[in-house]
Amino acid sequence: MEESLKFCGGRKYKGLAGKIACNIFFEPSTRTQYSFLVAQQKVGMGAIDFDVDSSSLQKNESFYDTIKTFDSLGTDVLIIRHSKNEYYKNLIGKISTPIINAGDGTGNHPTQSLLDILTIEQEFGSLKGLEISIIGDISHSRVAHTNFEIMSRFGAKVFTSGPKEYSERNMNFVNFKEAISRSDVVIMLRVQRERHSSRLGVTDEEYNEKYGLNSRNLKFMKKDSIIMHPGPVNRNVEISGDLMEIDKSRISKQVRNGVFVRMAVLKYILEE
Amino acid sequence: MEESLKFCGGRKYKGLAGKIACNIFFEPSTRTQYSFLVAQQKVGMGAIDFDVDSSSLQKNESFYDTIKTFDSLGTDVLIIRHSKNEYYKNLIGKISTPIINAGDGTGNHPTQSLLDILTIEQEFGSLKGLEISIIGDISHSRVAHTNFEIMSRFGAKVFTSGPKEYSERNMNFVNFKEAISRSDVVIMLRVQRERHSSRLGVTDEEYNEKYGLNSRNLKFMKKDSIIMHPGPVNRNVEISGDLMEIDKSRISKQVRNGVFVRMAVLKYILEE
Amino acid sequence: MEESLKFCGGRKYKGLAGKIACNIFFEPSTRTQYSFLVAQQKVGMGAIDFDVDSSSLQKNESFYDTIKTFDSLGTDVLIIRHSKNEYYKNLIGKISTPIINAGDGTGNHPTQSLLDILTIEQEFGSLKGLEISIIGDISHSRVAHTNFEIMSRFGAKVFTSGPKEYSERNMNFVNFKEAISRSDVVIMLRVQRERHSSRLGVTDEEYNEKYGLNSRNLKFMKKDSIIMHPGPVNRNVEISGDLMEIDKSRISKQVRNGVFVRMAVLKYILEE
Repeated sequence: MEESLKFCGGRKYKGLAGKIACNIFFEPSTRTQYSFLVAQQKVGMGAIDFDVDSSSLQKNESFYDTIKTFDSLGTDVLIIRHSKNEYYKNLIGKISTPIINAGDGTGNHPTQSLLDILTIEQEFGSLKGLEISIIGDISHSRVAHTNFEIMSRFGAKVFTSGPKEYSERNMNFVNFKEAISRSDVVIMLRVQRERHSSRLGVTDEEYNEKYGLNSRNLKFMKKDSIIMHPGPVNRNVEISGDLMEIDKSRISKQVRNGVFVRMAVLKYILEE
Repeated sequence: MEESLKFCGGRKYKGLAGKIACNIFFEPSTRTQYSFLVAQQKVGMGAIDFDVDSSSLQKNESFYDTIKTFDSLGTDVLIIRHSKNEYYKNLIGKISTPIINAGDGTGNHPTQSLLDILTIEQEFGSLKGLEISIIGDISHSRVAHTNFEIMSRFGAKVFTSGPKEYSERNMNFVNFKEAISRSDVVIMLRVQRERHSSRLGVTDEEYNEKYGLNSRNLKFMKKDSIIMHPGPVNRNVEISGDLMEIDKSRISKQVRNGVFVRMAVLKYILEE
Repeated sequence: MEESLKFCGGRKYKGLAGKIACNIFFEPSTRTQYSFLVAQQKVGMGAIDFDVDSSSLQKNESFYDTIKTFDSLGTDVLIIRHSKNEYYKNLIGKISTPIINAGDGTGNHPTQSLLDILTIEQEFGSLKGLEISIIGDISHSRVAHTNFEIMSRFGAKVFTSGPKEYSERNMNFVNFKEAISRSDVVIMLRVQRERHSSRLGVTDEEYNEKYGLNSRNLKFMKKDSIIMHPGPVNRNVEISGDLMEIDKSRISKQVRNGVFVRMAVLKYILEE
């Protein structure tokens, strides 16, 4: 975090020049993937960006053999995103290159969590004693899972809210109005339609009315509270488009912080 | 232009080292996209190449939010091509990163125009007093629109020609034979089938016969006149394949000049 | 080879800084493509990675015109893979940029052959007098064709084996058991289903039983012999998955050597 803050402050650092990062994304990504690419360039690293569609995965090569190949190519770190939870389990002990998890299925998304924490710390100094709500598609969200665990450990009181169908046990579920009224930080989640086996029986308008932030329910939020969203946003579903750039919103700042956090993570893992 | 000419002359320049360009092409491109990538490497910049197919656009993220994300990532310049005319209108005042327009729909393509002008100046010293014809699919061509306006401003007499169905008012339309007979510079355009809602009622052979350059009508061209084409070429449609590498052709030179012009544009915009 | 061995030994070399390589792969590839990209970064070069799907090939530009464009862009070397045998024939004399063949159809794959030879030399000192079997889908394999010719020239006795349907005349065809019993080096080939017009009338299990390496026939191999495979592997077809990381296997080492060989090739071609 300290390192990330230095990067936020404009610190220049090229200490990883000559090292090569390999970015292997099996799921679409804009923020995370390009944030890693920008971070790598900023710390002086070479970056390789694996394109699944033009790879030997098209010739039926397995995930394990693909990662094993990149391990043998002798790059310095592998950044991996995959739709399978804990994809990394089979790799432990088999791969000598360090791996950074850029998201595993509905499991975890650690660098997102770090950038969220950085954004909150910049606002409130510390997470200690804060009330934080994570709202929306909890069950499909790796962001929710990692944030709930880590932010609780950092001393925040974390709630979840949204449609009952997407809720999970043991995650302090409260109703939507309570969540937005009492929280210092409201984290809205994307409705992840691509992970749903069946659709919720509500239209986008109904979702926005009942579980989304809009100009009508914004007034229930506390005076100094902030709005966050890991992106990409379904505008006018989990949040109305006209709220995305208001004073309370930290959505763009999260993106900016993502680069600084990933610079710090790369430095931490690779610096000799 | 002066700067471009220095780069043509082999000038080395790494003054943009440490800066990062982000190339965001929503339409297929070889020449423009890779020309920018080569230019960025030659001036020492880091380059990021956005791949639409593996991005959050696959998760329904909007164009505006995608560009806003890249703005927040903190790169130094965005190079954007998009199928929508004036895609940049909604971005003005919202984005702090400079944008270079690499083509907007049927609207404009400024760096193509600059490289065309450079190519003509290398040949004739200046555009002043030259007669220039732009021939073919005028209405769908951003190259035609930008070149007509800019080259007229530089003092050339600019005509358009080709099928009536593709012509536009107020663009000095003349018949094909007149166009190729009187011009110092003949700019042939690609028939852009991907932008046509209905097809012209002519075969490729008929098009070549009536509106394309071929070995039969080449003789009508003036002695020191030159042939240009922004590429990619439909061989044997707007120009016969056997004319592409003859002495009169500047098609390869245009590609080469594209790199120099883009180096100059990057230097002009980003140098401190 | 000597140069490659120095790179294996950890030699650092940035002598190609400022030069730009352009990687143009018309067929899917993981090993070869990313191996070249890593090699380019390690020798200090800039790398451009051509993406067929977002290029003007989507606007019907021809292969020849695409390569001609990259020639005009002024990069220092083109790395090309294409499904057509001897794709380079039409380019000779037309293109001034050096080309490295990264595989042409069922024709040749020279850098693969170099890395195979390096791997064998590291094991046995020299190819002279060794017996080497290449087993599997010979007729569709550019690896087989190049290796048969080059390894014979280096003094090895080279056999081929596998299904009769995939065999070729004048390539020392022997039966499978003889091949694996007498050889110092057993090179298993991928069954290249994407190049087959009709399927062999055998299941994957039957193929593995008759022509693949498995725990039952492994015992026929000589004591100090080694197993190689150019990858990607169809696990449990030409080789059982549990043999891929045994002591005899050099599959990962081949990948590692691929980077060193390609660094040496780039240095050889581009160093002034």
